[in-house]
Amino acid sequence: MPLKVYLSGEIHTDWREQIMEGAKTLDVIFTSPVTDHDASDDCGVAILGAEPNKFWHDNKGARVNAIRTRHGIQTADIVVVRFGDKYKQWNAAFDAGMAAGLGKSLIVLSPPEHQHALKEIHAAALAVAEKPGQVVEILRYVLTGELP
Amino acid sequence: MPLKVYLSGEIHTDWREQIMEGAKTLDVIFTSPVTDHDASDDCGVAILGAEPNKFWHDNKGARVNAIRTRHGIQTADIVVVRFGDKYKQWNAAFDAGMAAGLGKSLIVLSPPEHQHALKEIHAAALAVAEKPGQVVEILRYVLTGELP
Amino acid sequence: MPLKVYLSGEIHTDWREQIMEGAKTLDVIFTSPVTDHDASDDCGVAILGAEPNKFWHDNKGARVNAIRTRHGIQTADIVVVRFGDKYKQWNAAFDAGMAAGLGKSLIVLSPPEHQHALKEIHAAALAVAEKPGQVVEILRYVLTGELP
Amino acid sequence: MPLKVYLSGEIHTDWREQIMEGAKTLDVIFTSPVTDHDASDDCGVAILGAEPNKFWHDNKGARVNAIRTRHGIQTADIVVVRFGDKYKQWNAAFDAGMAAGLGKSLIVLSPPEHQHALKEIHAAALAVAEKPGQVVEILRYVLTGELP
Amino acid sequence: MPLKVYLSGEIHTDWREQIMEGAKTLDVIFTSPVTDHDASDDCGVAILGAEPNKFWHDNKGARVNAIRTRHGIQTADIVVVRFGDKYKQWNAAFDAGMAAGLGKSLIVLSPPEHQHALKEIHAAALAVAEKPGQVVEILRYVLTGELP
Amino acid sequence: MPLKVYLSGEIHTDWREQIMEGAKTLDVIFTSPVTDHDASDDCGVAILGAEPNKFWHDNKGARVNAIRTRHGIQTADIVVVRFGDKYKQWNAAFDAGMAAGLGKSLIVLSPPEHQHALKEIHAAALAVAEKPGQVVEILRYVLTGELP
Amino acid sequence: MPLKVYLSGEIHTDWREQIMEGAKTLDVIFTSPVTDHDASDDCGVAILGAEPNKFWHDNKGARVNAIRTRHGIQTADIVVVRFGDKYKQWNAAFDAGMAAGLGKSLIVLSPPEHQHALKEIHAAALAVAEKPGQVVEILRYVLTGELP
Amino acid sequence: MPLKVYLSGEIHTDWREQIMEGAKTLDVIFTSPVTDHDASDDCGVAILGAEPNKFWHDNKGARVNAIRTRHGIQTADIVVVRFGDKYKQWNAAFDAGMAAGLGKSLIVLSPPEHQHALKEIHAAALAVAEKPGQVVEILRYVLTGELP
Repeated sequence: MPLKVYLSGEIHTDWREQIMEGAKTLDVIFTSPVTDHDASDDCGVAILGAEPNKFWHDNKGARVNAIRTRHGIQTADIVVVRFGDKYKQWNAAFDAGMAAGLGKSLIVLSPPEHQHALKEIHAAALAVAEKPGQVVEILRYVLTGELP
Repeated sequence: MPLKVYLSGEIHTDWREQIMEGAKTLDVIFTSPVTDHDASDDCGVAILGAEPNKFWHDNKGARVNAIRTRHGIQTADIVVVRFGDKYKQWNAAFDAGMAAGLGKSLIVLSPPEHQHALKEIHAAALAVAEKPGQVVEILRYVLTGELP
Repeated sequence: MPLKVYLSGEIHTDWREQIMEGAKTLDVIFTSPVTDHDASDDCGVAILGAEPNKFWHDNKGARVNAIRTRHGIQTADIVVVRFGDKYKQWNAAFDAGMAAGLGKSLIVLSPPEHQHALKEIHAAALAVAEKPGQVVEILRYVLTGELP
Repeated sequence: MPLKVYLSGEIHTDWREQIMEGAKTLDVIFTSPVTDHDASDDCGVAILGAEPNKFWHDNKGARVNAIRTRHGIQTADIVVVRFGDKYKQWNAAFDAGMAAGLGKSLIVLSPPEHQHALKEIHAAALAVAEKPGQVVEILRYVLTGELP
Repeated sequence: MPLKVYLSGEIHTDWREQIMEGAKTLDVIFTSPVTDHDASDDCGVAILGAEPNKFWHDNKGARVNAIRTRHGIQTADIVVVRFGDKYKQWNAAFDAGMAAGLGKSLIVLSPPEHQHALKEIHAAALAVAEKPGQVVEILRYVLTGELP
Repeated sequence: MPLKVYLSGEIHTDWREQIMEGAKTLDVIFTSPVTDHDASDDCGVAILGAEPNKFWHDNKGARVNAIRTRHGIQTADIVVVRFGDKYKQWNAAFDAGMAAGLGKSLIVLSPPEHQHALKEIHAAALAVAEKPGQVVEILRYVLTGELP
Repeated sequence: MPLKVYLSGEIHTDWREQIMEGAKTLDVIFTSPVTDHDASDDCGVAILGAEPNKFWHDNKGARVNAIRTRHGIQTADIVVVRFGDKYKQWNAAFDAGMAAGLGKSLIVLSPPEHQHALKEIHAAALAVAEKPGQVVEILRYVLTGELP
Repeated sequence: MPLKVYLSGEIHTDWREQIMEGAKTLDVIFTSPVTDHDASDDCGVAILGAEPNKFWHDNKGARVNAIRTRHGIQTADIVVVRFGDKYKQWNAAFDAGMAAGLGKSLIVLSPPEHQHALKEIHAAALAVAEKPGQVVEILRYVLTGELP
């Protein structure tokens, strides 16, 4: 039975592609949020109608996106949350908290300069990695027992 | 039976005191993380022994703090998460996610300039307020039906 | 330990007062939604700011009200849902469904003319009553074994 | 893995067929209650024996139908609840409440004239649509990230 | 905090009184079903109206009784189920199964002649006693560590 | 996805075979306890070693059987519990209670002469049938909407 | 509301008394297994009758003890598990696993020489202490924010 | 649907291979921890970077291993825990406790000389075996009803 891994976090770099490429021979099903930034922001109003008020514009889209992200987290065996060096990324931290609340195994992928700010989330994680390749190595080890 | 409210978020301003003062006639029990910043950072090493590596210094403390914060969130009826205008505040977003994952009612207290970055967390909340006084008003209304 | 009973349903008649008066010697704690109709409709905008769009005006208030109603249902031992002869009352049926989903004991209070339309909700209930006095009798029996 | 979507609500129009037709290229499994109105009303007595009392006639059938509907809701990833412009539709509102109580993602499909009466259910939903086509668009976006 | 003990089983002898008397100095709150046999059988029709059909007469009463018994089992720390030497006692076995399904600690009180027929229920129990006094001794030991 | 149905109850007649035969064209997976009476009684000692004391002989076997029956009940969508006209059948009633405690849909198959003794279990069921053929009809209706 | 702390582990030294004494001014309710070794071993046979077979003698007692220990763990906010330098202590490790499975906050109290053998249990803990006094300090910090 | 069995315990003998070989004709999927002892100890530092402090070296690895073992236990229908005659094996006892906390069916495989030290874990198990062949026989019986 494949391992189900949800990849949460910033959608501005190709970190997911790096992991999925590195894991292509492993028995893993990857899920993630929609990574097209404009589609993600506008999905609510694009489908359900415009909102002149930015708060409600964003709210409509966030709730539609939640259908996908909550399904991803709830069905995951492992949740990987990536923190990059830019952006507030509060939604990533929120996903990490939701995963922890649901008892999911959590892997955090973050750069060292964020260590102190991420200490609580690191403490909740079963692994803290700095590079996507390490996440692949963890998945390979978990599935096959092989180490790099 | 008193309403149990957990106040999560930045520990650098007196926003909790404002809420507790305003709610002092209400039947509410407030809990919160330890708000003494140095104690919070060093509780792990202060009790369990020094760690020369900053990562483990922070990890030890974060895990001891988690005993208190997870208890607060798990026993709460309502979780209030405050986002100020400074700091990364990823632990606050994490708490919000944990609250959501546990099915708790969530109130977010945040300034308008963070609206777009907090859209996912706002969407998970039952109320989004800008000022502590509004949180007090919500608690008063929930308990007594009175409006300002 | 007192029995906790949540009284859900229309807020246009005094059915709750009838039950609470009849049960005043019983060891029961009653909770209910806010029964002041205007306060209930406007609580969101009154506390958190006006919304020119009626949809969002209502949404803001419904979410603030949900803090109270979900707490009432989640902490209840018994949920009583009343259907009167007026109004759509979809929120009452929604509360009944939530109670059933949470495994709560459900008592429905409804007039005979709604029997067919309420058949699914009646089927989920442990008792179907027509008069508030019958609800009181059920509570008295459950607590003391006494019958009328 | 296919998305499992339960379509709850009135069984008097072809709204389900519209959604299933529009979604036929998507990886979705749709479930629904029995949509043959007479079969739905009489399934209990047809299989388990006649009941002269209408209440018990309806009760028998409602409980047999509950085997199917509760299975659909419990196994669903997403529950869509449709409110049309006719009928009391309390069973639809009940299903929405059950879905909410079970933490399912909820999409409501309703006409604008019911907005105020549905405010509580709208507030519990992750999307409120007016047309079946919008539900299809949400499912397409959730599965593929594509917008209309 | 007192230990909450639910006493399920036949209501034709005074076995409950024996246990409660023997445990009167212990910090225990005992709950039980209604033990007045006629009231138990007729509570449904006495409160909610007569049913000429015996099946529905019994069903109405059983569902009203379920409000009390399910509350007793759900809130119990320990469920004691008594099997006497008479009667079918399927409702007692049902309560034992419900307690097991809910993860409650189960104590069975039964005579030796039922051993083989009760083997599955004995296997689910944490203690199998023959006399009420032994149940009291178990409660005393669990609370105080004292043995007879 | 096939419906998973657990068939609990007496293992002395061919009621299961009747149901499985009647349902052979339906998308159902049936599970049941081991129906070889001697194997069921002796499985514990046959595998794990003799027990001179009948209580422990039965206990060993009951616990091994529990591995299979609990798996069947926990994974079932529907639990059918049959009460015949012989034997104490407390383990069947226990299974019904466990199913109810786990929120499973319950169908009871019992003869009319047991109606009063089974009133509590009937009240917890979504259908009460007298003949195996009726159980088949319910499954057919639930899966296809067809009635006899 | 007092913090509920369960003290699991070897019953051959006074480590519990050290913790309870040090925490006597804190708002904590401590629970523990029965610490009288002979009573703990013989409680089953002392109350329910002798068993010539040592396996069943021990089994009877272990199940009666489980009533108390499972209640302690299930109701605890924090579970402290102590590993001393003697004895197999598998029941302590089992309690730690149960606490982890139930999502309880875990504190492990163990000597350094067991570090490698306890690595998995240490990894599941929120704090690893070597001396009872440190456990007291953690409880004081969690309750009051004060550090030594 | 295959039975999912997690094999926990010492990784120094071939007991798993014996079970899997004996069960090769049965519809079972076996999972286990990584059984290469050095890989298991060093997986954390091998992937995520060296730790000079042995405690953190072990902690890093234990947490990475937890991703695999918790997944195995959480998805298992049956958890088999083996205690050999060497080593502390606290992680095995911890796994047994976690399985019990999660309501999994537990089979313990242990030598007679450990009977008294394992009495609590034996009491939580549905079967206590001494030889791997007996575990195979239990699985065969559970799946097919056949006895040796």
